[in-house]
Amino acid sequence: MIRAGIIGSTGYAGQELVRILLGHKETQITWYGSRSYVDKAYADIFRNMFTLVPDICRGEDLEALCSEVDVVFTATPQGLCSTLVSEDILSKVKIIDLSADFRIKDIAVYEEWYGIQHGSPAFIDEAVYGLCELNRDQIKEARLVANPGCYPTCSVLSVYPLAKAGLIDMNSIIIDAKSGTSGAGRGAKTANLFCEVNESIKAYGVAGHRHTPEIEEQLTYVSGQKTLLNFTPHLVPMNRGILVTAYADLKESISEQEIQDLYETTYEQEQFVRVQPTGVYPETRWVEGSNYVDVGIRLDRRTGRVIMMGAMDNLVKGAAGQAVQNMNLMFGLPENTGLQMPPVFP
Amino acid sequence: MIRAGIIGSTGYAGQELVRILLGHKETQITWYGSRSYVDKAYADIFRNMFTLVPDICRGEDLEALCSEVDVVFTATPQGLCSTLVSEDILSKVKIIDLSADFRIKDIAVYEEWYGIQHGSPAFIDEAVYGLCELNRDQIKEARLVANPGCYPTCSVLSVYPLAKAGLIDMNSIIIDAKSGTSGAGRGAKTANLFCEVNESIKAYGVAGHRHTPEIEEQLTYVSGQKTLLNFTPHLVPMNRGILVTAYADLKESISEQEIQDLYETTYEQEQFVRVQPTGVYPETRWVEGSNYVDVGIRLDRRTGRVIMMGAMDNLVKGAAGQAVQNMNLMFGLPENTGLQMPPVFP
Amino acid sequence: MIRAGIIGSTGYAGQELVRILLGHKETQITWYGSRSYVDKAYADIFRNMFTLVPDICRGEDLEALCSEVDVVFTATPQGLCSTLVSEDILSKVKIIDLSADFRIKDIAVYEEWYGIQHGSPAFIDEAVYGLCELNRDQIKEARLVANPGCYPTCSVLSVYPLAKAGLIDMNSIIIDAKSGTSGAGRGAKTANLFCEVNESIKAYGVAGHRHTPEIEEQLTYVSGQKTLLNFTPHLVPMNRGILVTAYADLKESISEQEIQDLYETTYEQEQFVRVQPTGVYPETRWVEGSNYVDVGIRLDRRTGRVIMMGAMDNLVKGAAGQAVQNMNLMFGLPENTGLQMPPVFP
Amino acid sequence: MIRAGIIGSTGYAGQELVRILLGHKETQITWYGSRSYVDKAYADIFRNMFTLVPDICRGEDLEALCSEVDVVFTATPQGLCSTLVSEDILSKVKIIDLSADFRIKDIAVYEEWYGIQHGSPAFIDEAVYGLCELNRDQIKEARLVANPGCYPTCSVLSVYPLAKAGLIDMNSIIIDAKSGTSGAGRGAKTANLFCEVNESIKAYGVAGHRHTPEIEEQLTYVSGQKTLLNFTPHLVPMNRGILVTAYADLKESISEQEIQDLYETTYEQEQFVRVQPTGVYPETRWVEGSNYVDVGIRLDRRTGRVIMMGAMDNLVKGAAGQAVQNMNLMFGLPENTGLQMPPVFP
Repeated sequence: MIRAGIIGSTGYAGQELVRILLGHKETQITWYGSRSYVDKAYADIFRNMFTLVPDICRGEDLEALCSEVDVVFTATPQGLCSTLVSEDILSKVKIIDLSADFRIKDIAVYEEWYGIQHGSPAFIDEAVYGLCELNRDQIKEARLVANPGCYPTCSVLSVYPLAKAGLIDMNSIIIDAKSGTSGAGRGAKTANLFCEVNESIKAYGVAGHRHTPEIEEQLTYVSGQKTLLNFTPHLVPMNRGILVTAYADLKESISEQEIQDLYETTYEQEQFVRVQPTGVYPETRWVEGSNYVDVGIRLDRRTGRVIMMGAMDNLVKGAAGQAVQNMNLMFGLPENTGLQMPPVFP
Repeated sequence: MIRAGIIGSTGYAGQELVRILLGHKETQITWYGSRSYVDKAYADIFRNMFTLVPDICRGEDLEALCSEVDVVFTATPQGLCSTLVSEDILSKVKIIDLSADFRIKDIAVYEEWYGIQHGSPAFIDEAVYGLCELNRDQIKEARLVANPGCYPTCSVLSVYPLAKAGLIDMNSIIIDAKSGTSGAGRGAKTANLFCEVNESIKAYGVAGHRHTPEIEEQLTYVSGQKTLLNFTPHLVPMNRGILVTAYADLKESISEQEIQDLYETTYEQEQFVRVQPTGVYPETRWVEGSNYVDVGIRLDRRTGRVIMMGAMDNLVKGAAGQAVQNMNLMFGLPENTGLQMPPVFP
Repeated sequence: MIRAGIIGSTGYAGQELVRILLGHKETQITWYGSRSYVDKAYADIFRNMFTLVPDICRGEDLEALCSEVDVVFTATPQGLCSTLVSEDILSKVKIIDLSADFRIKDIAVYEEWYGIQHGSPAFIDEAVYGLCELNRDQIKEARLVANPGCYPTCSVLSVYPLAKAGLIDMNSIIIDAKSGTSGAGRGAKTANLFCEVNESIKAYGVAGHRHTPEIEEQLTYVSGQKTLLNFTPHLVPMNRGILVTAYADLKESISEQEIQDLYETTYEQEQFVRVQPTGVYPETRWVEGSNYVDVGIRLDRRTGRVIMMGAMDNLVKGAAGQAVQNMNLMFGLPENTGLQMPPVFP
Repeated sequence: MIRAGIIGSTGYAGQELVRILLGHKETQITWYGSRSYVDKAYADIFRNMFTLVPDICRGEDLEALCSEVDVVFTATPQGLCSTLVSEDILSKVKIIDLSADFRIKDIAVYEEWYGIQHGSPAFIDEAVYGLCELNRDQIKEARLVANPGCYPTCSVLSVYPLAKAGLIDMNSIIIDAKSGTSGAGRGAKTANLFCEVNESIKAYGVAGHRHTPEIEEQLTYVSGQKTLLNFTPHLVPMNRGILVTAYADLKESISEQEIQDLYETTYEQEQFVRVQPTGVYPETRWVEGSNYVDVGIRLDRRTGRVIMMGAMDNLVKGAAGQAVQNMNLMFGLPENTGLQMPPVFP
């Protein structure tokens, strides 16, 4: 039985980890960390957990934490995990960081886009980027995994087959993404009030969102070509879900069927990536509550562009589900343990 | 392994049965029935089931059905199940009817409120009303279970402890209920379009909703007193969830704490009924996707009335989840098999 | 041209006042008050007003205010207006108070339910309760109007005809109300975040909401009988709208048609109360953005109860619209000036 | 007083026309046409109009129509208006066609994308494309105006200043658009049910939506360069609103401030186009219920692309509001008559 600790268990991603791990046969949550709710009953904060979670929230006692768990999930804002990691800690527990601290290899890029100094540069190299479908083998050996961002997960998996095959111009990529509001977190901000979000849609972080360099870095690895792209996220009046609509110029003439085949072949062995048949496009309602990413493509012969689409639940495959998928790999469990819940509809 | 057949698998309740049974270790769905989508792939109708359900929809071949399944769920409009049941059928399979056909014992009442003739009056007596918390023992022996209506499930469980204890005036009860829109079904009606439901709330079926006599009958049994009440359902712009706010005059002076204790004692052994602590009221968000009913009470000393509240997911405890709970009892399985999924929030 | 000042112009009700007064031919807003946004451009806070409102927000300078306006709207939390009113102020400007300070005549009741000491008891008697349909004549002469609460407006107008006619038992009334989330205000609270409100419904303030004594007081006046009732508000995932479902025991046998006639006769001259025809019930979508209250009734012969329903926009007839209706009366303008906008659907 | 007739008055756009024209001082609606609801009271279909519209719906009697109105709005599916227009009709009434029939000048393009034969090719040349900000002078003289599509209105106005200035590569344009669900019409389709749309987002009509050639044609005129582009619409769970996020490669180096200045200069005289200040992006909530289009821009120096954004209410500036704006021009009224309602928020 794996003993799990969650730092930041009272955010939306943290709570989703709790939901998933409660159904995970090989894991027990032994540490519910929360800076804001120390000593409060977890089920008083999230009453869906009433009768399911009797635990109270714990504060910041790293030593106690390390002695009570085998794996630590940090579901916290950027900057925390990097100040926490040390050789000593990693000798005791494995860490899966849901923040951005170890996702970007180039520390200058990290510090420029995030506007903070990195707390433990020494561990950046060791950290493995936890996009399971791409880095499965390294993850199995990792002590420290950087769980990918929600937008990057959906974006990279949507574009990956064509990028890897060298069939698209890597400088022509435009990613227009749409996210449910749980991605904005549980902080009490006017901008995220019901009446401000409901019945509206807006772009935000235009040409400046921090997930941009993360997507670019991963697509650069995949394609072998330095990639600069436009990434525009939008806020949608729904709780969960990310939809990515990505555009790129094809470098050579290729049929829609060939692209379709490429996607199907690429993801043939992947349980959590579902390539939609020709003419069917991903919709977030079909993945809600599950660890699936649905991807689909469309060729526009008139413009020579391909449209690549992906849909997933930002809290599952985009955060907690992928974190558990990483944990499974790191602990030698079947990758889908605890992750086989079907999508909830409607 | 129980082989299950679902007649009406392409409605919202039918699809929820599929979702739940996919996670049920002792059951395999071997028959996806659908009058509207015969020969179509189930996953083409509900694309959340893509890669999970390879089956195609089957039409109405009762003989074939009975030979391929051990239990039949009828998730259909009223009137169908009662024309289907026979001694021959019941000798081969168990039936759990999610429609209203066998819920009401007085056939005259049924025919008056539903406006149709009952198709098999001979089986009304045998049918067990499948509210597990009240009729557990009879359900275990049943061949034919009438799965309770969504509103009646939430209403009866909210009022039950006080009604049974004889502490409220059974002719003073008013039940004001609110439901998400999945309760209105998947039929293509203008009134249920997004733009007609969104940003609005309305009462419907005022003083005439068909769940009224069902609630009255059950509360009459429970209290031993003929019960007439007002029941007013409302349509709420959300997918899932029922909230019941019930009012009754107390017959004698009693403290809020005593009522609280009564509820806690009554439901002490029930896994799926969660009595909220004093001062906490049920909210549908805390039960979504799960089989829980959350109940809570409040005494108004000024008026001498008690307010009894209940929240549940209309598609789970209000339909498919309770049907599986019934199946578990009928087949001698632990009652919570396949039903332990925590509520999904947000 | 009436010069209007709004204290609290950056809340939802304050902003709705701005929207309505921009279309009011006889009024000019000359003071946009806001404690939180002093010196900021109003249109930077509410960007719907971009190019329409060039003004910047003003702080608390009562003397300046009184010299620049003819009427002051206080769209603030309770407690502020009562500390502001004085004979000197009222000799210079008329006041329409959208808070609760002057709604309740019994100061002990006010202080018990609101938990604060009243700031100017001397003016309670003078203040006129601004429910235009009931107190039109007094409003015309008033210097100080207490604009009714949102729930009380809808509740009282729904019950008024039967209460006034003495046909219902005034101690049998139960009011189950449902409100959109703008009623919760624009404060940054976790409970009002999009993900907390969306896809859920809950009761709140059960047996303790502050609008209870206000409704009771008005219905006591109307019926001539001391009235105690149950009032339960619910939070609905929509921006605007209040629906009231009220129940009462009939004191004598009367037909539904007679009740219908009573309502139609009572409101015959009222432009803003629309009595729905028999069999049609109010829905909030049909009044959104307008000053209408739609009311409808249903008799339940089985239980001898009448169900009285009302729907309105909580920000218009429930706040800003009614305030403007009061202003029109106080300044001798046609009552519907600036209030004739049709409901916006969908 | 202009007498107006609406063919298709019981769709969402038709009903919005009614709402707007009820507030238009110079117009009276004398014909409420509806194929589906002939002889039914208009207010029974849209109960927001109860007490406001006493009229009943009229069927297809073109002769009667022409004798009772001065202007006809056709708020119908494509194909109807083109079969109705004739020299005789146009000699009696002016026509504003809200369908696509006369928007596209190249009949072959129309027939290819719409899959129907054009009913009156002779009038295509005469018809004026009713995008008021671009074609004001021709509209003033027109007998037949093709009211622009919702997506094209928002797309063209967002891109227009840069396209006209020749500063962007017209073959690099990608338009990613998001629309509320009223754009899908009031037909009773499963795909538009509340539970199917709510809590989800999807792309549709990818690389094949009929508004594509309309946008291309207009941008070709504007830029003087044959334009092919990608246009991808998405369905958003909200009633109203369109957001356009458009991307293009800059042809030469230019600063964000210069682009900002270009937009502000271009739209300086336009009441209904509101150029957002630098750093502020359009959101649909700020234009709901009004005739405004909010536009904003952002330069991405890293990629050399400009992001152009626009937000408007699809039923107002995207349909009924623009139709009234056209009517005003055609009848010599001030262009903003009846269109000055501020946006409704929240």
